[in-house]
Parts: sequence; C-alpha cells; structure tokens
Amino acid sequence: MSNESAAAGRVHGPVRIVGAGLLGASIGLALRERGVDVTLADTSRSNLRLAIDYGAGRAATPGDDEPVLVVVAVPPDLVAEVVEAELAAHPGALVTDVASVKSGILSALQDAGADVSRYLGSHPMAGRERGGALSARADLFFGRPWVITPHEATAAAQYRALEDLALELGATPVRMTAEEHDEGVALVSHVPQLVASLLAARLRGATSAEVGLAGQGLRDTTRIAGSNPELWVQILGANAAPVARVLRDYRDELDAVIDALEDPAASGSPRRIAETLAAGNQGVARIPGKHGRDDRYTALIVKIDDRPGQLARLLTEIGEEGVNLEDFRLEHSPGAQVGFAEINVLPEAAHRLAAALESRGWTLAEGER
Amino acid sequence: MSNESAAAGRVHGPVRIVGAGLLGASIGLALRERGVDVTLADTSRSNLRLAIDYGAGRAATPGDDEPVLVVVAVPPDLVAEVVEAELAAHPGALVTDVASVKSGILSALQDAGADVSRYLGSHPMAGRERGGALSARADLFFGRPWVITPHEATAAAQYRALEDLALELGATPVRMTAEEHDEGVALVSHVPQLVASLLAARLRGATSAEVGLAGQGLRDTTRIAGSNPELWVQILGANAAPVARVLRDYRDELDAVIDALEDPAASGSPRRIAETLAAGNQGVARIPGKHGRDDRYTALIVKIDDRPGQLARLLTEIGEEGVNLEDFRLEHSPGAQVGFAEINVLPEAAHRLAAALESRGWTLAEGER
Repeated sequence: MSNESAAAGRVHGPVRIVGAGLLGASIGLALRERGVDVTLADTSRSNLRLAIDYGAGRAATPGDDEPVLVVVAVPPDLVAEVVEAELAAHPGALVTDVASVKSGILSALQDAGADVSRYLGSHPMAGRERGGALSARADLFFGRPWVITPHEATAAAQYRALEDLALELGATPVRMTAEEHDEGVALVSHVPQLVASLLAARLRGATSAEVGLAGQGLRDTTRIAGSNPELWVQILGANAAPVARVLRDYRDELDAVIDALEDPAASGSPRRIAETLAAGNQGVARIPGKHGRDDRYTALIVKIDDRPGQLARLLTEIGEEGVNLEDFRLEHSPGAQVGFAEINVLPEAAHRLAAALESRGWTLAEGER
Repeated sequence: MSNESAAAGRVHGPVRIVGAGLLGASIGLALRERGVDVTLADTSRSNLRLAIDYGAGRAATPGDDEPVLVVVAVPPDLVAEVVEAELAAHPGALVTDVASVKSGILSALQDAGADVSRYLGSHPMAGRERGGALSARADLFFGRPWVITPHEATAAAQYRALEDLALELGATPVRMTAEEHDEGVALVSHVPQLVASLLAARLRGATSAEVGLAGQGLRDTTRIAGSNPELWVQILGANAAPVARVLRDYRDELDAVIDALEDPAASGSPRRIAETLAAGNQGVARIPGKHGRDDRYTALIVKIDDRPGQLARLLTEIGEEGVNLEDFRLEHSPGAQVGFAEINVLPEAAHRLAAALESRGWTLAEGER
C-alpha cells in the first residue's frame, strides 16, 4: 500500500528503515511528513512499536512494494552484517547506512562478497544527548552536514538519490571518500571525545573542595565525557587507526609540555608552553561558525534575580522596546541567587536599549554600559 | 580624604588597589558602590586613567590616610615583588593578591624576608573572556568562590577581613591552604586549559572539509583554547609541578588508550577503551552545578527562523502566556537559516505552553511535544 502520489518531493518511497533509534526514527518522521511511504524494522518489538506510534513509519507487511531505498540505522558493530542481509533481501534497492565510521563497513562488505554496487554509505552529522526513538525529531538534520561516501562502484544516480535524501531532510550533502570521512571525524569528533573522557576521568579522585572550584571552562571541556560508553567503544574501535594517529601527535606535544613543566625555569620551557597555547589559538580559529563573541553585535549584560518570571519579564520588555535580539546567552553562577543574561543586539540599538532597561529598573553590568 | 562615614558594610577603607585590570577595576567598582574609599595605582597611566574614569576609585594623593587593605592585582609574574614593595610601603596594612597560583608567592616573600604576617593570599575564581578595566563589572564576583589561603602567620582577624571583602562583593569565601588551592586549580582549570590547547592545536593541519564537520562537541572542548597565551604561560609556569603531576596521570591513561587503539581487536582492548569512557562518565558527574539537562524542568524545543526579531517575538509571547522561563538555550546550526530555542519550564506548564505556541504558529520539535 505504498502511496506513490503523496510524495511530491525529491525522495520517492517506499523507503525501508532498519533500526528505529534516534537516527532511524528521525529520518522516518521527516519522510512521513513529506508523504513518503516508510516501513520500519527493529529487532526490538517495543522500539518498533514506539517508533510507529510516534509516526515514523509503518510495519512492513507481506505484499508490500519492494523498497527503492533501505536505510540501515543500527548500532555500529552490526551495520556491516545488516547491510549485507538487506542487499541480499532487496535486490532492487539502494542500501545506505548512517554509521559514524565508513571505511570498515565497505571493506567488510567487499570481503563478504556482497553486491557493493548497490551500497552507498552516508553519515548525517546530527545527534542529541539522548538517544532512542523518543528523542527523534523530523528536523534533526536541518542545517547539518550529511556526508556521502561514494566508492568506485557507485553510479552517479545512486549518489544523487542520497543527495536528494539529505536535501529533502534539510541537511547539507558533503561528498567525501570513506577514508577522508574517517580521518575527518577522528579529528573533529572521536579524538575530542577521548580527550574529554581522559580529562573528566582525572576528577574521580578530586576532593569536594577541588571540584567546588570548577568553572565554565571545566564544564565545557568535559561535557561530552557524559556520552554513552557502549556506543563509543564501537565507534572508536571501528575508527581505531585514524584516531590513534591523531592521538599520537597529541601525545608527542603533551610530552613536550610535560617536559617543559618539569623544568619551568629552563631556557626554552616558557617558549615551549607558549607555542602550544598559541597553536591552540590558531586551531580554534579554524572552526567555522559561531564560537566566542560575534563582533557584529554589541553585548549587554543584565543581572537577573533567580526568581520565576524574571527572564521572561526581561525578554518581554526587550520586545516592548522593539529591539531585535540577535543572540542570547544565560550565565548561571551555581548556588547564586542571580544570573546574567547576555543580550546581543545591533550596535545602533545597544545604547537606547541599555538606557531603556535601566529606566525600567534592570541592573546592567558596568563593563557593557 | 577618606570617607569613613559612607562605608556601612563589612569593608572599611581606605583600600588601595595596585593594578587596574579586569580584577582590580572590578573590585574597585564594587567597593566604590558601597561607599568605600578606594585608591588605584597602575604602572600604565592610561590604564589608571581609564579605571578612574570608570568609577573604580581615585588616584592616591600625598596626605591620604594609610590604606588598611592593599589588593595587588597585577600580572602573575609580578605579584611577589609588588606584594613585597607594598608590605614595605604600607606597614599598617594587610596585603592580599588575587593571582591564580598561590604557593610560589608566599615562598618568594618568605625567601625575600618580607613581613608575611601581613600577607594573606586570595584568589577570586572569576574572570571574563575579555580582560582590562573596560570589561570590569562590580558584580564579577557574585556567586563565585573566592579562595583565601591562610598560612601559619595569619591571624584570625586578618582572615576575617578578607572573608568580609569576599562576602561584601557577593562571593563565597573558601578556605584552603596555598598548596590545596594550587592542586585544585591545576585539576579544574590549568590542566583543562592545556588539554583544550593541545586538542585545538591538532586542527591547524586540518582541511576545510574536515573542520566543516565540526559540531558542538568540538566547539565546547576547544573554546578555552582561545585564551591569552601570555597570561597562561605565567599561570602555568607558576603552577608547573601540580599541573605536571595531573598531566602525567593523564598521559599514562592516554598511552593505554593509544595501545588499545593500535590493536583494537586484541582481547582487552575494547574493555580498556570502555574503562576510560566510563571513568569519564564518573568524573563529569562529580562537577557540581548545572551541567547537562536539569530534570526539574521540561524542555520544549522551538524552531526559530534566523530573521531579526524572531527570538524576541517567541520570548515575548511566552511572557504573554504567563509562563515562567526557568532556563533557556539557543542552538544554532552554523550556516542554517534556522535555530532551535530550548525553553525550560516547570512540567505542569509545559503541555499548556506547547499547545499555546503551536496555536500561535510556532513549530515545536517532535521529540518534545
């Protein structure tokens, strides 16, 4: 009972999604919104039930039309065998997966003698802190990169089919070889995960007085250390060689810094440490997008009592003043009865807004007046 | 011309502040607000002028009353010699400093034969991304720990005087020995700084395609790598031994992880990696305060077009619905014409607000409906 007439967009079903977790259910939700016929499969009956109730698709039934596209969204360790089974079961379908490591899957399929001409790997760079179908969002992929990793057996039409899937879901298709992808995610995702875990691990032995000194820097550098170990063991194991390569360079520079710290008065030690700090400045400047202050805007910092309604009142009053909020950040002092709202507005509006807020009784931080 | 009658709070002047940067000027602003007589000194005439214009205090003049408290707020490398000079110049005053490393200053003063019975070090754990008097805020210390590091020559009244300073400025006094403090900040501040710098340094050689894959995890783990190298070389040099100790443990565990990644199929390798990830989970859970989701509240995720006024309109309308915003976070997808506002409200208000926002035309993410 595929509904061919409803799908007016780039993607035409039936699409079969294997694995109804966060990514699988989110893809299903987004495709269903666009009228695409989606069938769902999951080895867990309760996961499947949940995703179906949620609107991510329907259970496959005998007599269904064959899928044109199969999306495998199962845990990393299972991807290769599930892709192999789907290639065999649906000989007319293009099969893709959404795993975060790509080279190993392709070579496992080649080793197994699977028909890789119908396999094209991909990796939507989207996720949430919570997994599972319950956290699925149709707009999970909006504005995110969606890497597609063609290989020598990939036909142009197959690449376009996945590109259409990414575009239809609001993502930005990015073409890379599987190797380029794996090197890239080692650097920007897998090594940061391990570095954060290793750093946070140091806090196990800390005294309460020590962790009581923690500020935003520690919170930011260790936030992702809260990630799911089971999932990450699979990811890191699948991308071990590229991750180890980046970590060896990291360790070599760490060794040099430790040497300098062990004899900080030695000639060359301060320079060695300064070089690492300066290299960090250069590296962080390479990350695109919003990081640090945005100098198109002027920041006003307003003190907010930690009472219900205060933030809403502030933002309502900014609306009443007719000033557009360009960006906004709330800064909490743990334990304090006060917070600071950083309000980013266009420079030409800043002075007027500051005066208006003060006349309404708000306290602005001196630095920004 | 000290104004003894105006100071009704815990701190009575005159207070002399040496170094009119972010911390010195912020302390000055806060004390002036409370009517305390503050004199300022800075080797830079223009810094001094700026801080005075700003309202952080007045220039010292001949015939002034002697200060009862001197606060040394100069760059780390200069603290010991400036404290020594201030102890000699103001024999009736208690002298403190606000540097982020404490043991070295005390031992340098002892080595120099200074009157350490009038020196009591402290460290307000507050800062901003921008330094200088222009960034000063009277409320910079509000809700932050202010470590005070008494030593064997410290009298109880001296400790109370600094405790009063911290309390008057809204900070939470924390009593530690200089050694405890330095071990603590090595762990929660100095090592995270180096770890972030070393990680960000890896991005120098990245391709544009690779850094284009960066997500929030990389941004968070590397944000503080944008810090000022000149300042941090001084801090790390002054706390070299405790920082090196933590980093050696970090390196030992890093070595074990690299070994496991170099032979990921070996028995024991997955367990080794899983142990580090699990240790990271345990460590991050030790950090007090807001990190990750706050389960007292229900999060609603609302899609916001990246057009001026959209966020203000949303927040104004939440105000109109009479719902208290308990916390708020804006999530930007770099390059996307859309963002997501995560609105945290009390569970009992969430359902009503979600319905009200949808009827006003907002799109809520499926996961949170």
